[in-house]
Amino acid sequence: MSGKDIGSVKALVFDVFGTVVDWRSSVIRELEQFGRSKGIAADWVAIADGWRAGYLPSMDRVRKGELPWSTIDELHRITLDALLERHGVTGLSEAERDRLNRAWHRLAPWPDSVAGLTRLKRRYIIGTLSNGNVALLLNMAKHSGLPWDMIFSAELVRHYKPDPETYRSVPELLRISPGEVMLVAAHNSDLVAAAREGLRTGFVARPAEYGPHQKHDFKAEHPFDVVAGDFLELAERLGA
Amino acid sequence: MSGKDIGSVKALVFDVFGTVVDWRSSVIRELEQFGRSKGIAADWVAIADGWRAGYLPSMDRVRKGELPWSTIDELHRITLDALLERHGVTGLSEAERDRLNRAWHRLAPWPDSVAGLTRLKRRYIIGTLSNGNVALLLNMAKHSGLPWDMIFSAELVRHYKPDPETYRSVPELLRISPGEVMLVAAHNSDLVAAAREGLRTGFVARPAEYGPHQKHDFKAEHPFDVVAGDFLELAERLGA
Repeated sequence: MSGKDIGSVKALVFDVFGTVVDWRSSVIRELEQFGRSKGIAADWVAIADGWRAGYLPSMDRVRKGELPWSTIDELHRITLDALLERHGVTGLSEAERDRLNRAWHRLAPWPDSVAGLTRLKRRYIIGTLSNGNVALLLNMAKHSGLPWDMIFSAELVRHYKPDPETYRSVPELLRISPGEVMLVAAHNSDLVAAAREGLRTGFVARPAEYGPHQKHDFKAEHPFDVVAGDFLELAERLGA
Repeated sequence: MSGKDIGSVKALVFDVFGTVVDWRSSVIRELEQFGRSKGIAADWVAIADGWRAGYLPSMDRVRKGELPWSTIDELHRITLDALLERHGVTGLSEAERDRLNRAWHRLAPWPDSVAGLTRLKRRYIIGTLSNGNVALLLNMAKHSGLPWDMIFSAELVRHYKPDPETYRSVPELLRISPGEVMLVAAHNSDLVAAAREGLRTGFVARPAEYGPHQKHDFKAEHPFDVVAGDFLELAERLGA
């Protein structure tokens, strides 16, 4: 993670939830719109935050074998159903629950994401490297104009980050060395795990990701190869 | 394959070698340029045709277990090495053989391919569905401006077309039904195998694919869902 010799990087892969897209504002907006349209009063902000809080524990259940391999769509749905019950939101149809669950397919990019990725794509292979499943990431890309060359997903190797298999899958599929791949993420822990597999690292802070609940990842806490304020600065730093 | 009800199609996946790109002219051009630059006289056209002729038999060796799972890059290289020896082309370095082998990463699109795909992308998810490996398909896309949303490849499921697993992988990863996916190909047999797995089918003739050696696939020989003369007509027929 020494900051030197990033000239050999050929592919940039991006964490998505929080790094490329603003999941929290998007999910809150979708939940609140749903509540208004159905005349259902609930603490939709708390449901959104609870939904995301269920993310890591639900992947841990897969990792420990308590659940068979399950996509993030499936894990999101399990968490949503429990949260709706806990918050007293009842009587929703299967179609309504499915539509809510697909809010994660419609997350809005941060203001600099599309412009930055478009610049970076001219010089680099750009892809996702997300725990989101392929359908979720692809629908999001179509919805929001994210110009990926490739969707790399935990689903393709059935291992969730930070399992090493997920990071290794990118150089393996691209037939390049790990040092020719850079992970870009707003999360220190994701980058530390990527660096352990030999990937280069780029940190872009997203201090508003968790809204008022943000507790970490305000800044790079390790000597990552590149640190930038947004994707446009990242493109600048990477010569794109 | 009834030709009706293609309004539910959400994703178009494309055979690549021959359907999207003109492998024969491209490979001949690269081989001839190489021969000129090195001062090596050889029947480069015969080597190109022999290279492609080795394609199906080499995948069959994998299918029968005579070879472990091998990418098309690896199979191309085995075939190339044998052909160079047979044609008396000796003394090439590893780097020269590797560069020649990567000719398949630089195949030129048919004249209508990029324009047609760009139109189709506005309305549909568009992806490859090729026996080519991910790196090959991605490098080709970057080289030639093929605007794929996703690279679907035999490599992701370690089964070569026409094995059913390859066709099934697209609706499985996209979480849609097989009838919401259309395979577009210039090869009758590929489409017949796709239809057997419930995919919709689009035939686009590429009568110059094999140059003077073309023996079949001049026209659709089955009642495919759509038959078009090129990708622009395909876009027109599919309302894109």
